[in-house]
Amino acid sequence: MNNAEKALLLHEQWQGKIDTTPKCPVSTREDLALAYTPGVAEPCKVIAEDPEAAYKYTTKQNTIAIVSDGSAVLGLGNIGPKAAMPVMEGKAVLFKTFGGVNAVPICLDTQDTEEIIKTVKYLAPTFGGFNLEDISAPRCFEIEKRLKEDLDIPVFHDDQHGTAIIVLAAIINALRITGKDKEKCRVAVNGSGAAGIAISKLLLTYGFKNLTLCDRSGIISSARDNLNSTKKEMLELTNPDDIHGTLADALKDADIFIGVSAPNSVTQDMVRSMNSDPIIFAMANPVPEIMPDEAKAAGARIVGTGRSDFPNQINNVLAFPGIFKGALEGRAKQITEDMKLAAAKAIAGLVSDENLTEEYILPEAFDPRVADAVCKAVKENIHPDNIR
Amino acid sequence: MNNAEKALLLHEQWQGKIDTTPKCPVSTREDLALAYTPGVAEPCKVIAEDPEAAYKYTTKQNTIAIVSDGSAVLGLGNIGPKAAMPVMEGKAVLFKTFGGVNAVPICLDTQDTEEIIKTVKYLAPTFGGFNLEDISAPRCFEIEKRLKEDLDIPVFHDDQHGTAIIVLAAIINALRITGKDKEKCRVAVNGSGAAGIAISKLLLTYGFKNLTLCDRSGIISSARDNLNSTKKEMLELTNPDDIHGTLADALKDADIFIGVSAPNSVTQDMVRSMNSDPIIFAMANPVPEIMPDEAKAAGARIVGTGRSDFPNQINNVLAFPGIFKGALEGRAKQITEDMKLAAAKAIAGLVSDENLTEEYILPEAFDPRVADAVCKAVKENIHPDNIR
Repeated sequence: MNNAEKALLLHEQWQGKIDTTPKCPVSTREDLALAYTPGVAEPCKVIAEDPEAAYKYTTKQNTIAIVSDGSAVLGLGNIGPKAAMPVMEGKAVLFKTFGGVNAVPICLDTQDTEEIIKTVKYLAPTFGGFNLEDISAPRCFEIEKRLKEDLDIPVFHDDQHGTAIIVLAAIINALRITGKDKEKCRVAVNGSGAAGIAISKLLLTYGFKNLTLCDRSGIISSARDNLNSTKKEMLELTNPDDIHGTLADALKDADIFIGVSAPNSVTQDMVRSMNSDPIIFAMANPVPEIMPDEAKAAGARIVGTGRSDFPNQINNVLAFPGIFKGALEGRAKQITEDMKLAAAKAIAGLVSDENLTEEYILPEAFDPRVADAVCKAVKENIHPDNIR
Repeated sequence: MNNAEKALLLHEQWQGKIDTTPKCPVSTREDLALAYTPGVAEPCKVIAEDPEAAYKYTTKQNTIAIVSDGSAVLGLGNIGPKAAMPVMEGKAVLFKTFGGVNAVPICLDTQDTEEIIKTVKYLAPTFGGFNLEDISAPRCFEIEKRLKEDLDIPVFHDDQHGTAIIVLAAIINALRITGKDKEKCRVAVNGSGAAGIAISKLLLTYGFKNLTLCDRSGIISSARDNLNSTKKEMLELTNPDDIHGTLADALKDADIFIGVSAPNSVTQDMVRSMNSDPIIFAMANPVPEIMPDEAKAAGARIVGTGRSDFPNQINNVLAFPGIFKGALEGRAKQITEDMKLAAAKAIAGLVSDENLTEEYILPEAFDPRVADAVCKAVKENIHPDNIR
C-alpha cells in the first residue's frame, strides 16, 4: 500500500480526525445540576451582565474556528466546502496537539465575500478567534480586512501571515549564516497571491528595503498596465528602482529568492545571475520552483522548500499554534505586525549558533519548544491598547 | 457554599466544558504526511468527486451543531448569544456523554429569522445535523420549517420535539397505570409556545383525539379573535367540541393536564374538577404549575414535573442523545414523526411492568440503556426514502 492509499484508509478508520470531548462529569444528578440546569444559569447570568465574563466561564477563552470556503485548498484548488473538511480537521489536530488550542473546522457553503464576512461575524460570540484558511485571493484580503475592522477578536489568514512569519524566520537565520544586511539585500518574490503579498509586507515591516514582486506577467512595475488594486498598492511599497521585465530580470543580482508560485519556474541560469551566496526559498508544492540539488549546483548557499523530505522545510505549523495560543492567553483583540515579527524572531532564535547550518535554519516541526516560545514572544508583544 | 456559588466556581475552573480533541497522532513526520499534507489530499479528492463520501472520511458522520441565538434560554429569557454559551456547552457534554455524538455549540450574533436560516444553511457542509436550541417562538417554527425544507440533514428543535417525545413517553406509561384509552382521553395543554404546540402535535399523531390548547388568554377556540397563524392552525387540529373559556374550563372533566406555562397556574380545585385518576404533568421551571404534593392531595393519580427533586422528571436528556445517534448512524435525511414516536415508545418501554408505579413512569436520566434503546428504535424507523 502506498502512502496515498494508506492516508485514505486511515481517514476512513479515524471516522473524522477530531472529537468534541466533555471536560466535566455528568454521571450523577448533582453533576447535572451543576454543569447543566439549574446551576448553568449562574454563569449565564454573569455573562448577560458582563459579556467579557464569557472569557472566564466558556470555551471562548481557548477555542477558535478554522473557517474556509474550500476555494483554494492546498494544491487542489477550488474543491468546495465538503471536500475541504479533511484539511481543516487536520489543521484542528495540529492546533490542539502543538498549541493546546481548541479549533473547530467550519466549512461554509458560500464563496460570496459579503456572505462570508457576515457569517463569520454572526459566529463571533462563540469563538475566541478565527483562523481563515484556504480562501482564494483577492477575496481573502477583503474578508480578512473587514473582519479585523469589525471584530474585537483575533482574525488571522494563515495562508498569508503564517507563511510570512515562517519565511521571515528562515530569512533571519539565513542572514545570520551569510552575514547579509537586511537593509542592503535585494529580495525577489515570485507569486503575488495571498502568500506572496503577505510575505512582502512582513519583510518590509521587518526592515528590508529593496523588494521586487513578480506575478505570471513578470515584475510588478510602473510599466505594467494590468495591475489590480492590490498589486498597485504593492507597487507603492516595492521595486524602488522600478525595474521592468521578467522573473529572470528580477533575480539578476538579487540576494534572496522567495517562490510561492509555480513548479520549475526558476532555472539554474537565474540562480547563477544572483548576487553571491544566494538564498533560495522555493515553496511551490509539491514541486518547487527549482529542486534543491539543482539550486545548490548553480551556487545557491541556502535552499528551503515546503517539503518535509528536503532540509529547511518552511512549515506553517511552526507558527500558527503558538500564535493563537499567545493571542488567546494574552487576551489580544488583534494579531498585530509586532506580534508576527516577535513570532518570527522567536522561531529563528530557537536555532542556536552551534546548531545553525546551511541545512538547518529552522527548528523541526515537532520540536516541543516551538509553540511555547512563539506563545511567549507573542504575549510579550501585545500592546496594552490591544489587550481586552 | 451553596449550589449556585458552586456552579459558578466550577464553570471558572473548567475553563469551558468541552474540548476539541485529536483522534489521530501527529507526533512524527510520517503521521503528519498521512493526517495532513500531502496525504490529506486523498480524502479531499474523493469527496470532491462524490460529496456523500464526506460521511466516510470526515467528522460530518458523527458531529452536529447546537445552534442558538440566545433568545429564549431556560428560565432566563433573551440573554443573547454570549450568555447562552454555558447552556449550549452543557448540552454538548450531554450529547457526547449519553449519545457519543460530537456536538459543537454555535451561538449566533443575530436574532433575525432570515439571517439565522441563511447562516445555518452556510454551516451545513460541516455538520451531520443541527440541534436548534433556545430560539424563541414563533421564529423557531419558521426557522425549523425552512431548514427542514432546504437541507438534507436532520434539523431538530429540541425545545419542541425533545420535550414532546418525553411527555409522550410519560403519558404512554401513565395510560398503562390508569388503563385510560388514548382515543377517549381528554387532554388539556396549557402553554402554546414552542413546547406546547409540539407536544400537542405529537399527541395527535400518536392517536389522541380530544385535545384542548390554552394560552395566557384561555382556551384556543373559535370565540377567540386574537389568534396568530400558528394558533389558528392548531385550532383546526384541537378542541373538537369547541369549548370556550379559561384554563379552569379546559381542565373540567379532563383526564390529562400538560403544563408548559407559568408557576402556580393550576389550583387544587381545578384538579378536583378533572375526570377520575387525573394525570398531571406540571413542567413550568423551576416552580411548576402546581406542586406535586398539592396535586396529589387534590386527587391527582400521577404527577410529573421538570424537576429532578420530585419523582417522574420529564427530562429531554432521555431523548436527544439517542435521537441524533440513531439519525446519524442510520444516515437519515430528516427526523420524522415516525422516528419521534418510536423514540417515545422506546423510552416508555424501558420501564418494565414490575417497575412501573405512579412514582416511576420514566427511566432515570442516567440509565445507561436509554440512549441505545432510543437510537435503535429511531434507526429501525427511518423510512427507506429517508436514508441518504
